[in-house]
Amino acid sequence: MSQKWIYHFNSKKTEGGKDDKNLLGGKGANLAEMSSLGLAVPPGFTVSTEACLDFEKNGGSLSEEIKNEAKKALSLVEELSGKKFGDEKAPLLFSVRSGARVSMPGMMDTVLNLGLNDQSVEGLAAQSSNPRFAWDSYRRFIQMYANVVMGFNTTILESTLEDLKEARGVKEDTELTGEDFRELVQVYKQLILEESGKSFPQDPWQQLWLAIAAVFQSWNNSRAIKYRELNGYNHSWGTAVNVQSMVFGNLGDDSATGVCFTRDPSTGEKRFFGEYLVNAQGEDVVAGIRTPAPINSSSKNDSNNEMATLEELMPKAFAELTGVYKKLEAHYKDMQDIEFTIEADKLYILQTRNGKRTGAAAIQIAVDLVSEKVISKEEALLKMNPEDLNQLLHPRLDPEAKRKIIAKGLPASPGAASGCIVFSSERANHHKENGEKVILVRQETSPEDISGMVASEGILTARGGMTSHAAVVARGMGKPCVAGCNALLIDYKNQTLTINGAVYKELDTLTIDGGTGEVMEGVVSTIEANLSGEFGTFMSWADEVRTLGVRANADNPEDSAVAVNFGAEGIGLCRTEHMFFEPERILAVREMIFADTKDDRQKALDKILPFQKEDFVGIFKALAGKPVNIRLLDPPLHEFLPHTNEEMKELADYLKLELKTVEARAGMLHEFNPMLGHRGCRLAITYPEICRMQTRAIMEAAAICHQDGIKVQPEIMIPLVAIDLELTILKKEVLAEIEKVRSEKGELPEFKVGTMIELPRAAITAGAIAKDADFFSFGTNDLTQTTFGLSRDDAGKFLPDYVGKGLLPEDPFVSLDTEGVGFLVKFACDEGRKVNPNMKLGICGEHGGDPASIDFCHEIGLEYVSCSPYRIPIARLSAAQAVIRRKS
Amino acid sequence: MSQKWIYHFNSKKTEGGKDDKNLLGGKGANLAEMSSLGLAVPPGFTVSTEACLDFEKNGGSLSEEIKNEAKKALSLVEELSGKKFGDEKAPLLFSVRSGARVSMPGMMDTVLNLGLNDQSVEGLAAQSSNPRFAWDSYRRFIQMYANVVMGFNTTILESTLEDLKEARGVKEDTELTGEDFRELVQVYKQLILEESGKSFPQDPWQQLWLAIAAVFQSWNNSRAIKYRELNGYNHSWGTAVNVQSMVFGNLGDDSATGVCFTRDPSTGEKRFFGEYLVNAQGEDVVAGIRTPAPINSSSKNDSNNEMATLEELMPKAFAELTGVYKKLEAHYKDMQDIEFTIEADKLYILQTRNGKRTGAAAIQIAVDLVSEKVISKEEALLKMNPEDLNQLLHPRLDPEAKRKIIAKGLPASPGAASGCIVFSSERANHHKENGEKVILVRQETSPEDISGMVASEGILTARGGMTSHAAVVARGMGKPCVAGCNALLIDYKNQTLTINGAVYKELDTLTIDGGTGEVMEGVVSTIEANLSGEFGTFMSWADEVRTLGVRANADNPEDSAVAVNFGAEGIGLCRTEHMFFEPERILAVREMIFADTKDDRQKALDKILPFQKEDFVGIFKALAGKPVNIRLLDPPLHEFLPHTNEEMKELADYLKLELKTVEARAGMLHEFNPMLGHRGCRLAITYPEICRMQTRAIMEAAAICHQDGIKVQPEIMIPLVAIDLELTILKKEVLAEIEKVRSEKGELPEFKVGTMIELPRAAITAGAIAKDADFFSFGTNDLTQTTFGLSRDDAGKFLPDYVGKGLLPEDPFVSLDTEGVGFLVKFACDEGRKVNPNMKLGICGEHGGDPASIDFCHEIGLEYVSCSPYRIPIARLSAAQAVIRRKS
Repeated sequence: MSQKWIYHFNSKKTEGGKDDKNLLGGKGANLAEMSSLGLAVPPGFTVSTEACLDFEKNGGSLSEEIKNEAKKALSLVEELSGKKFGDEKAPLLFSVRSGARVSMPGMMDTVLNLGLNDQSVEGLAAQSSNPRFAWDSYRRFIQMYANVVMGFNTTILESTLEDLKEARGVKEDTELTGEDFRELVQVYKQLILEESGKSFPQDPWQQLWLAIAAVFQSWNNSRAIKYRELNGYNHSWGTAVNVQSMVFGNLGDDSATGVCFTRDPSTGEKRFFGEYLVNAQGEDVVAGIRTPAPINSSSKNDSNNEMATLEELMPKAFAELTGVYKKLEAHYKDMQDIEFTIEADKLYILQTRNGKRTGAAAIQIAVDLVSEKVISKEEALLKMNPEDLNQLLHPRLDPEAKRKIIAKGLPASPGAASGCIVFSSERANHHKENGEKVILVRQETSPEDISGMVASEGILTARGGMTSHAAVVARGMGKPCVAGCNALLIDYKNQTLTINGAVYKELDTLTIDGGTGEVMEGVVSTIEANLSGEFGTFMSWADEVRTLGVRANADNPEDSAVAVNFGAEGIGLCRTEHMFFEPERILAVREMIFADTKDDRQKALDKILPFQKEDFVGIFKALAGKPVNIRLLDPPLHEFLPHTNEEMKELADYLKLELKTVEARAGMLHEFNPMLGHRGCRLAITYPEICRMQTRAIMEAAAICHQDGIKVQPEIMIPLVAIDLELTILKKEVLAEIEKVRSEKGELPEFKVGTMIELPRAAITAGAIAKDADFFSFGTNDLTQTTFGLSRDDAGKFLPDYVGKGLLPEDPFVSLDTEGVGFLVKFACDEGRKVNPNMKLGICGEHGGDPASIDFCHEIGLEYVSCSPYRIPIARLSAAQAVIRRKS
Repeated sequence: MSQKWIYHFNSKKTEGGKDDKNLLGGKGANLAEMSSLGLAVPPGFTVSTEACLDFEKNGGSLSEEIKNEAKKALSLVEELSGKKFGDEKAPLLFSVRSGARVSMPGMMDTVLNLGLNDQSVEGLAAQSSNPRFAWDSYRRFIQMYANVVMGFNTTILESTLEDLKEARGVKEDTELTGEDFRELVQVYKQLILEESGKSFPQDPWQQLWLAIAAVFQSWNNSRAIKYRELNGYNHSWGTAVNVQSMVFGNLGDDSATGVCFTRDPSTGEKRFFGEYLVNAQGEDVVAGIRTPAPINSSSKNDSNNEMATLEELMPKAFAELTGVYKKLEAHYKDMQDIEFTIEADKLYILQTRNGKRTGAAAIQIAVDLVSEKVISKEEALLKMNPEDLNQLLHPRLDPEAKRKIIAKGLPASPGAASGCIVFSSERANHHKENGEKVILVRQETSPEDISGMVASEGILTARGGMTSHAAVVARGMGKPCVAGCNALLIDYKNQTLTINGAVYKELDTLTIDGGTGEVMEGVVSTIEANLSGEFGTFMSWADEVRTLGVRANADNPEDSAVAVNFGAEGIGLCRTEHMFFEPERILAVREMIFADTKDDRQKALDKILPFQKEDFVGIFKALAGKPVNIRLLDPPLHEFLPHTNEEMKELADYLKLELKTVEARAGMLHEFNPMLGHRGCRLAITYPEICRMQTRAIMEAAAICHQDGIKVQPEIMIPLVAIDLELTILKKEVLAEIEKVRSEKGELPEFKVGTMIELPRAAITAGAIAKDADFFSFGTNDLTQTTFGLSRDDAGKFLPDYVGKGLLPEDPFVSLDTEGVGFLVKFACDEGRKVNPNMKLGICGEHGGDPASIDFCHEIGLEYVSCSPYRIPIARLSAAQAVIRRKS
């Protein structure tokens, strides 16, 4: 019963501060913080997120308790300001704004100038000596309130305004008089009554309660829900509401409003930087109707260098602002994004927050703040959002370039790319060979599309989520990918792509931004990634701190080289089957699949051997002595079969079999649940000769390097073990083949044999499995699928809803489910170490590149994580943060 | 180095006994046991199973160590018998027989009369004063040895024999003289040398080593391997070899050979019973060339009542045999199956074992042995193989009826049935309505075939294993099923079934025996199951002892009634979706699936509600107050969609949609891994209205019964929970709907709400889930699939190989994997009980009817198991055995 719903922020009494974002929302927390710092924040109060949840619980009504608390809080503001809510002489006006724990820009509603009515508008006119301002504010308030609170379609109000301007023979709102606005107010009120049957409320309290309710309700409007789903935010958080007394930047030429940054958010350069508008409200800056002026000379650019600076125009206010920004940056120890208003030459601070910045700026600011001794290296590391490094590692769109966005999908793999569209791997390769840059457009991709993905600059798919095949492979390749772009209608037959009615054909150009999910028409110019000196400095700090190793998932020499360049300390997962899909190999693979006898199978395997060996030599050379963990064949054999009739026919010809025989055999390989089928080590149990061939390829390659004086550390990994005996039997096969290679090829380097723990049963029986394992590598993708009983390929239909409804804090394929999957990982580590204390433990699922998951891996004492090459720096930083977090 | 390979059995020194089957094989263990009892067992020795494994390890060669031990053992036999191996005066001959730990009748090889050569044959002739016998034995030995040991195709030897008979103008072997056989021996030896290039070995030691090696090798012949795979026996066990001195029942009219049972193996009646042949070898009885005579008057039947009994013909030997059988039955405390030979009026016992018997006989014998005070009730319960009860619960083939077996599949669901074959559910229903008994023949069945399965007497499928859909559903229905019968070629288009070239059309008759897997032509008459008084007595003993409850899996009133009749104490799993497939309901279900809006979906659900309610009323009535656990909708929605074009068209018409719209929507429901897809409680999270409708149907039905004075205990089960919040949210929906029903319908009975634990994550987070669960029911089918990462539908391709190679002790879908899946079950029990000590815990997977799994369920303290109605008595007995086993 003693629940507190309302929190003050004013010069006399302020409750809470910047660490109370969950309760007060980000905006509310910072308003409280600034008030405590003694800055000139217009006084007000915050209705907490808990009140929002209470409001929802009560079926969308504000309790009397909340209202009573709000009344008390408001009277304190009245007291401090000497004005009165709804007063006809000195009326106190309020803004009513949403503010959730995370910024959701533009998603929820705002009401300004609340408290105006037919009486108080006169007070405002008198007080400001500016009736035009007062009536303009009133008619703006009515329009905003009708729209936001009353759900009124305001088109009719806008056209009335247009009609009036036409009648007056003017073009701009600014040309209308106070009398015009007074007239407009009457018309607005009348129209609202006629159209909605409800009159515009004159009671300021009624205005307030309904406005707060409307903001709370806007937490659940469809665009806010969609936004949270896209960003993985929880629907159960709720929003706070900030009720703050109004200050006016539009009272005359001694008033202004603006935004400033304490450093350059684009480059990180240390320069005070911002824009302002004289005689304007904050909304006018956002709306972009007038071109804002630079606050100081260092903010000048081509479009504004003729304009007067704030420093020149209002030196006193500017000097105050300078004091404020220094105070705020020193206090928050970070670059600040500050909103201010100057009302009759008096400066008010409306908002501050850690400024959004580009990845490059983030690095620059961090390095500068350390050298300025504002923060320590560890603080700098901890402040950096690892995901922000992403931008630095990929080409990005030139921010100056024009773009026409035609669709939006999931930002599945960062970076930007332009190219001619193609609809198949074959065409991708064809045009690539002709020197074209291509974008591969598919419903969704499958392992068959690998060669096309390799040939492309970027990948665009209509289906699939953040962990779809396209997304995972593209991230591995460091190629931009926009996935699950529902607006695409792909017609393979006619080779067309239709987006909102516009038809694109093969070789039409598109640009995709895999960091935002945007799809653009034509070619948009890009800027290459530039790993500046500061980046290296910053990453070296991370490397000094972290204890967790960072390896890469890479399947070929090229990716391996990229990985090493990004700082990989080895390969944590080399998927040998990706090597099978190249055109000259796939036929031999298929020949192997269709072999009737062990001898025939061996013949086909003998054709594949030299290719695999060559790949391994390349990878070993790229790694130059660092360990390389190679996973033996994993997917079910049907993944290697052709799908089209034409390809089937081709295969039948090649195998000298009848088409129907080939089709029948392919049919026999069909599986109801391929994820749970005849794959991984189960294939090797059935066909040990496949495991033998791969072992031979690895060790012959190792022998070549070893004998050339190149250090090699091969680790042979048996996938999908569920039963300890699977590993026992296959390890014997592997060792026997290695002995054969040794007897033929002479001295071999040291090697390890181990297994992937990717099934619940493997984790549970890890003690028994550890007997024969030199290492465990946790395959958390499959472990998540089996632990949850959830197919990654099918979960897209309902998983977003699960995250949205708060059933899951995060997509468990993105961020490791520590409670369930993590329990098994930890259990297996403990059991494995008991039996084999020297065992190496690592993780090679997609989670190896996710900051939260990396923190967990550090916590349970893994030796390394392995992730896509392009996520290596992110993993290095996350691993450092995991250490630092545990110190404080 | 001091490994012992050879074990004696003789009057002077016997090593081991009946409990050493793993080491000595079943036959060897019993020979030792009988020798120890002082019975007249021809002396010999057993080469152990360990020697077999050593032989395999050495690449198929007998070590000198083993040979040396065998030489010593053989010389002891020489000493005791006064004969000498290979001697030309008093030759000692041996039989060399396989003997594994379990009986594998006819699967491995045997050599008789070993030790005969050109010299010793003369000794045998002199010694027996019967040269014809000696030369006949020699030529038989050569033929057997050439075949078994030398791998010689003996057709040519057989035709030589035929030629000789023709030349002599005789028809039977018995009409040939000793001189004829002597001549035949020369021809045989010559032919073998010419055809194989190897001469028949004269050295008896060489004969012995090669014969032992051949028997060891026969462990791995293809039929033995196949047999073990079919029976789930381990390939790594190996076989023992018994080398035993020969005795001859064919030395003249004072010699004989026979088989006897201490009680009737068919009825269990207490009568000494057997058959014998004068002047014959044991093989002759088995071969069935001559009609055997009854050993005593109580063994007489229509075909042998004119023949002299052994009792009349050889009273002394018969009296001895009577003494022996009594001694053996008293010693083994069970009905014995005894092989004996009388050589020159002297009785020898060659083998005894617990006699195979029918289920009926097993019960009769157990009850009799208890009333005779030979064994206690608990011993009787423990002795009974629970699986043997199966026969008692289903109609079985009349043992006297003639049968023509045309194919063999897996014995998927016991019982026998005859009927006209049909190839679709529709035709099954059609002919059933016309009064025909039908057998449904399908490639494999799916949920769509349920109505056809209901209409059929039995089910026959070409694909699928012991846990295929057909098998599981048939067992649930108590209908005979033969599954995975590879010989079937089904042509749906032409509606024909071809088996080995013979074509069967719709309405041709077949008979299937689901207990053996046999498929027979035409109608074979059957005998109805008869649960005699002894059965009731026996089961009541089990009920007195057991502490584990036994419930049934049943989905409709009929099965529920059967279950109660078999002793079910409740329903442990009522799958509501099985109710959806009946023709008048499936359209409404599909309408629900295709609904665009919640309102449309509700309309369709309103059509299904009365059907479900009616079913529940029927089930509640059948259970008469016992608890009924009802699982809400579980399978993915696409399982309810039609598959054929025709049905799609029909559905489109019904829904008033275009065919392509229906097809497109159906396509969208497609899943890559349906097992891990949008099913179980995930459907209810997306469509809470489905969960609401089902809750309403259950509780309205409960209200009707309750208000009629019928006691009801509904338990509502939410399936496939992976996350505690899923249950929290859905429990709220369920409770809210129940409150609505209460407000409309008045007083309701008590109910429970709980969940199925069938995913690893649910087991791991059971503590959190337990907060909202009144009960846990372990769905060990799905839990096995996810814990192993193994699809039941796809595992058939490699799982038998896994069991065969010893990777798994048993098919984990048949017998619970205690190490992996069992760990999770136990873990969840412990965690669940900590949070909610009153929680009810049960199991409802197929494992609930498996004796070994039931033992585990008892061990970890579950409250009940739930299984197919027809396995209820098996579960009751197994539960009792679990208690008794822990006492001793």
